[in-house]
Amino acid sequence: MVYFDAASGEPLDPAGREAYLAALDEGWAGPDRLYREGRRARMLLDAAREAVAEVLRCRADELVFTGSGTSAVHQGVLGLAKGRTRAGRALVLGAVEHSSVMHAAELAAARNGGERVLVPVDAHGRIRLESLTQSLAGLAVGLVAVQSANHEVGTRQPLREVAELAAGHGVPLLVDAAASLGREPVPPGWSVLAGSARKWGGPTGVGVLAVRKGTRFAADWPQDERERGWSPGPQNVPAILAAATALRARSAEQQEVGLGHRELTELLRARIPELVPDVEVVGDPDDRVPHILTFSCLYASGEALLLELDRAGFSVSSGSSCTASTLTPSHVLEAMGVLSQGNIRVSLPWSARREDVERFLDVLPDAVRAARPEAARDRREEAPASAAASAALEIDALGKLCPLPVIELGKRIGGVEIGGTVRVLADDPAARLDIPAWCRMTGQDFLGAEPLGDERPDAAAYVVKRVR
Amino acid sequence: MVYFDAASGEPLDPAGREAYLAALDEGWAGPDRLYREGRRARMLLDAAREAVAEVLRCRADELVFTGSGTSAVHQGVLGLAKGRTRAGRALVLGAVEHSSVMHAAELAAARNGGERVLVPVDAHGRIRLESLTQSLAGLAVGLVAVQSANHEVGTRQPLREVAELAAGHGVPLLVDAAASLGREPVPPGWSVLAGSARKWGGPTGVGVLAVRKGTRFAADWPQDERERGWSPGPQNVPAILAAATALRARSAEQQEVGLGHRELTELLRARIPELVPDVEVVGDPDDRVPHILTFSCLYASGEALLLELDRAGFSVSSGSSCTASTLTPSHVLEAMGVLSQGNIRVSLPWSARREDVERFLDVLPDAVRAARPEAARDRREEAPASAAASAALEIDALGKLCPLPVIELGKRIGGVEIGGTVRVLADDPAARLDIPAWCRMTGQDFLGAEPLGDERPDAAAYVVKRVR
Repeated sequence: MVYFDAASGEPLDPAGREAYLAALDEGWAGPDRLYREGRRARMLLDAAREAVAEVLRCRADELVFTGSGTSAVHQGVLGLAKGRTRAGRALVLGAVEHSSVMHAAELAAARNGGERVLVPVDAHGRIRLESLTQSLAGLAVGLVAVQSANHEVGTRQPLREVAELAAGHGVPLLVDAAASLGREPVPPGWSVLAGSARKWGGPTGVGVLAVRKGTRFAADWPQDERERGWSPGPQNVPAILAAATALRARSAEQQEVGLGHRELTELLRARIPELVPDVEVVGDPDDRVPHILTFSCLYASGEALLLELDRAGFSVSSGSSCTASTLTPSHVLEAMGVLSQGNIRVSLPWSARREDVERFLDVLPDAVRAARPEAARDRREEAPASAAASAALEIDALGKLCPLPVIELGKRIGGVEIGGTVRVLADDPAARLDIPAWCRMTGQDFLGAEPLGDERPDAAAYVVKRVR
Repeated sequence: MVYFDAASGEPLDPAGREAYLAALDEGWAGPDRLYREGRRARMLLDAAREAVAEVLRCRADELVFTGSGTSAVHQGVLGLAKGRTRAGRALVLGAVEHSSVMHAAELAAARNGGERVLVPVDAHGRIRLESLTQSLAGLAVGLVAVQSANHEVGTRQPLREVAELAAGHGVPLLVDAAASLGREPVPPGWSVLAGSARKWGGPTGVGVLAVRKGTRFAADWPQDERERGWSPGPQNVPAILAAATALRARSAEQQEVGLGHRELTELLRARIPELVPDVEVVGDPDDRVPHILTFSCLYASGEALLLELDRAGFSVSSGSSCTASTLTPSHVLEAMGVLSQGNIRVSLPWSARREDVERFLDVLPDAVRAARPEAARDRREEAPASAAASAALEIDALGKLCPLPVIELGKRIGGVEIGGTVRVLADDPAARLDIPAWCRMTGQDFLGAEPLGDERPDAAAYVVKRVR
């Protein structure tokens, strides 16, 4: 098996593993204890904190360890929102933030009586600075939250500009750096920073939360004397030491490894559209983290594609709907307005090899073909306009799940004359994204969506004009 | 070094360590992932859940894993309190519950607009059932929280009676079983159960939270799709597997090991008062968990005693004030109304040996002597009434920390005639406990405490009548 889902988490780094085992013997006791084992654990914890603080470029006393990256984000958002309730209660987030940021802000807004404001992004997933400017000018803002880079498509956010804008309004900036920590240096300008050790080769069960001195920050969770009251529960010293060790090791090599990864993702970016028909590579082509490459395949089911690739020996993830537990496409792809069907994210682990990437390219075409329903494979043959072309056509795809509505559209648009329209009735939420994306990719005109009434909130008629 | 602080946490059990290492290789991936590594992690997670559920005697789908025992308690209290806001908002807790229960209930009461009601305990730390009955009869109660056994003094709580009382009023019972899980079977009757893996030889970073089917329970934290939404963040599969392995191993041996530990703590309980003058052994002599034994030493500073024992090779903990980060005595000792100075908790690890306990008894007398200030050591010689005995005496111990006010009292009470009174002015919170305890232990009469005014809330005159 080749594991290409590093953005979800990596196996524990060998240096981290060694540190963990050593600390199981030396640092298992409570670091708040006065006896020898406790003092030893305290020394290890302090050393780990210094090491991580150096990488984050913050002071050791600005940094606490949490039980996960998720907790770091939750505590960061809740604590900052609560600390700032007097100054402002609008919580301004990028529309492609990680779901942990989204959910924490939703709760913080409900608790503090504020609102959650999503700043739109462009088609690459980059936050629109003019929209952020407007929000900051027009609202009493409690916090701005913008990730360092997007976890699904790899696009870097313009953090310097965001930090300047926020600072200009005296608003603290929370940066979720989970997608870039250990891969790239952290840009300055944040008030609160959150990260997750398992994304940099550390163990599961360690997050980092840094809060700059002078930031108003108030616990919105039960009191606890450890970690400055910002992270309840005992410090997991062995895991923290493993996390610090892995982060330090990677930070030292990140530039060199990153260059290698960039070559590999550029290879994927260049070759995939040549090898696979009807594919859309998403995310910024240049200004992105080096290890993530994402693409979507028209007419393919994301889940079927995942399983085909698994069978071929590759572990990747997908932001498509219909995968495992969710029936809606990823909110990231939705905010970008790109194709969501047959979506695949390749994220390279630290030790990724060129031959594995090449082999991935070898198996991909067959995997996509197998993940496209029979009907989609025949599409090209049936596409030409038939003799009985009409001026208008309605396709009832209600109750059909992605990618079926788009496949139907592709098969039957040949049945209307050039200049005629097709109305596709669909209630799969993915159609909102995928029908416009299909038009863009095939050169047809998307005229808009008409809701089908309040009783079926997800149902709409998608109107497409045939122009070629 | 001999580690006698198992109630704070134990080193990782060898079987747990082996399971952890195996799962680092086999179960490091996200168990929600569809690819092979994810499916493998899911299988390990499911197996661990089944194993723990069997020990807790609950269904696997009633059990979630959290990032710590602290989180399990926090989530248990917050979720239960929120789920029950319509039925009742009074949160009724034993007065000797763990601080994590106390703090979570404090926050839940503030959030939901309820009150936290503490049920008093007897001198052994056992909850007073008649007080619980009154609270349940007189209040709209959201939850009752009572631990399985007390973590500081080992006393078991009467959970069967508590569960019956709560059930009689239709009120759910939350049991913090951290002090007994892996040492004793869990009594039935709970609606929510919380525990901490590192107290049963599992790794730090794993808690268990079980919620019985049908219990009203509502997340009061950010939304997350994992672990039924009850525990945000990724499941730490290697650590969970290690926790389950350790719990299963210990449960199989707990009866036998417990018998051995009971012998050892009974040895301590019998010998300590013979070896050390002016000592009070606390906690129930019989109805208690087998591995915890706690005592307090008059005139000794808890911190000094900890450090003396550390020097002699023993790691123990203390509920005295003036240790490390706190200036108030443990709320457990305070609720019991027992001596808090020179307090030491011995809690035996799984592998405790008789020879280590015997050596502890060997070194204890010297350690206590060294931890008692010079003045306390001379006390016995100075105690007899002097020729110039007076009818009343005032000792100004304001600004003096425990154990000094009691030492002064002991030294100078000989200066008043029998039937005369001594007023000790003190503002150390420990004096509230320690002056009455001193009277009890030395056979003098404690008449009461008179506050010295609102400006100095901790200051009081403690009035003692000399009767011998």
